[in-house]
Amino acid sequence: MEGGTLGTITVGVDVGGTKIQSAAVREKKVAGVHRLLTPLTGAKDVAAAIGEAVGKALADGGAQPTDLEAVGMGVPGAIDTEAGTVSSSPNLPGFQDARPVALGAMVSEALGGVPVRLDNDVRVAILGEWKRGAGRPYRNLLGVWVGTGVGGGLVLDGRLHDGQGAAGEIGHTIVKPGGRLCSDGRKGHLEAYAGRGQMEVEARHRVKQGHKTELFDIMERKGRTRLSSGVWAAALEKHDKMARELIDDAMWALGTGLASVQNLLALEAIVIGGGLGDRLGPTFVQRIRDEMQPLLFVPDRPPAMLSSEFGDLSGAVGAAVLAGG
Amino acid sequence: MEGGTLGTITVGVDVGGTKIQSAAVREKKVAGVHRLLTPLTGAKDVAAAIGEAVGKALADGGAQPTDLEAVGMGVPGAIDTEAGTVSSSPNLPGFQDARPVALGAMVSEALGGVPVRLDNDVRVAILGEWKRGAGRPYRNLLGVWVGTGVGGGLVLDGRLHDGQGAAGEIGHTIVKPGGRLCSDGRKGHLEAYAGRGQMEVEARHRVKQGHKTELFDIMERKGRTRLSSGVWAAALEKHDKMARELIDDAMWALGTGLASVQNLLALEAIVIGGGLGDRLGPTFVQRIRDEMQPLLFVPDRPPAMLSSEFGDLSGAVGAAVLAGG
Repeated sequence: MEGGTLGTITVGVDVGGTKIQSAAVREKKVAGVHRLLTPLTGAKDVAAAIGEAVGKALADGGAQPTDLEAVGMGVPGAIDTEAGTVSSSPNLPGFQDARPVALGAMVSEALGGVPVRLDNDVRVAILGEWKRGAGRPYRNLLGVWVGTGVGGGLVLDGRLHDGQGAAGEIGHTIVKPGGRLCSDGRKGHLEAYAGRGQMEVEARHRVKQGHKTELFDIMERKGRTRLSSGVWAAALEKHDKMARELIDDAMWALGTGLASVQNLLALEAIVIGGGLGDRLGPTFVQRIRDEMQPLLFVPDRPPAMLSSEFGDLSGAVGAAVLAGG
Repeated sequence: MEGGTLGTITVGVDVGGTKIQSAAVREKKVAGVHRLLTPLTGAKDVAAAIGEAVGKALADGGAQPTDLEAVGMGVPGAIDTEAGTVSSSPNLPGFQDARPVALGAMVSEALGGVPVRLDNDVRVAILGEWKRGAGRPYRNLLGVWVGTGVGGGLVLDGRLHDGQGAAGEIGHTIVKPGGRLCSDGRKGHLEAYAGRGQMEVEARHRVKQGHKTELFDIMERKGRTRLSSGVWAAALEKHDKMARELIDDAMWALGTGLASVQNLLALEAIVIGGGLGDRLGPTFVQRIRDEMQPLLFVPDRPPAMLSSEFGDLSGAVGAAVLAGG
């Protein structure tokens, strides 16, 4: 592919509630990246910001707007991939309604008619890790994205598995019947123990009961209003007892849930990513493996337990893959 | 296909530890069946009995041995489908060793060289229900076989899913961490609550602790040495408290385990079969659905909950499908 032209380029965009991360991909390699804050002012401004993030990633990769072949996007919420619409997004301003918004068309228009594809953010991140990252060698793998919630995506027999829609919701598998309350109002789900949102609910509950922790002091010192992954990591470094207990619970819940999935699906690999997964890294993955291993039905064929390779770029890389890059 | 000849015929054989069930299949319809007791005297006698079961099913279907095109078998244990061997069978006399026995070749030889294929008994039964029975309309389904143990098989995107081997072991998913002891020595597995083997262990344990039940009287009156599906059904009819409690536990465990699987895989259908599943029938399936429904993440798209269509013929029909019938 050497020659007078650098060839065409595809841009993937990971559209989050806080930031928009873009990656320009040329010949399957990341050539340029850009990150900007997500506007809080509605769908139109989000679409414009995505257009800007695409342009900046192109420029960072030394490419012209005319080199742009296609754009892919990973977006939180319910996605109609055919229609290119987004609805019921948990945290993206302008897309929280049940009424679908045609984000695909809006971004395409902002970019002069370039083809745009979109899919759910977690599915897209796992697509990135499978096609370009840690999951490359495998045909049967589970991606587990541990962040505010716990999302997942399954590759089975070399294909992303969708079932009758909404497959991969490993966060809502039951690890402890009648256990801790989950974000969806049901009890004992994996996400109730390993999702940062519910971990924070539990921490606040324990503080009210009189238990001590440095978690919220660290949060304030960092200028945060939520227990971010960085706050959890800092508290662990300070040997904070409550942080240790809650992270232990998270690893126990992940080990238990993943053992059940492994016993059912006989996967080759499990890739752990997401905000908290990336921040706590290989130690976290190793400890989850230690929790899982004694629960495996076929202990001599455990899945390879892997950290995501692209970290918080997984989504943008996967979005580029979605668009053919 | 009308004409001077009835066309070729395929025979499927479900090889169990107690009985050998055969079904002759012509033009996708069951034309003849036969059932005989499994010899307890070793692999050679089992192979000969399978040969006899094939011949009797052919005769029952009004066919000649020369009409026989192929034989399929479902066999409990670890199967090498390429080599046609069986090893580590939990309950088939002559095949319990870790050393593989070439059952495929033995049966082929006994039948004058006819092609023989074999696979795991539960996988084969689920293949039968998927291709010819209750699962026909679906591309994503789980078969759950509730008998002495709890086995399973997955059809995903229109293909039987094997993973890296041994996929479908839903019996060894964890429904209650630290809970009742399972047949494999681990705790809290679905099979510990819903497999007849562990249900009997629990019933005997409760009797030792002084609890009352008619289960074992019924067993003796029926001339059994184990709590068969028929014994459980009879005890339920007599409103036996312990039987009721243990069956309630089984339905709770199945509902909980299946909800997790559904949340992960977004299946279209779940087919419940096996000895206990068939014996307790639609009421059992309905109650499992009632346990599962409140635990579903997407409650408005529950899987169709179905009883097996062929009952204890599922395995033989599936074995015929395996052989191309």
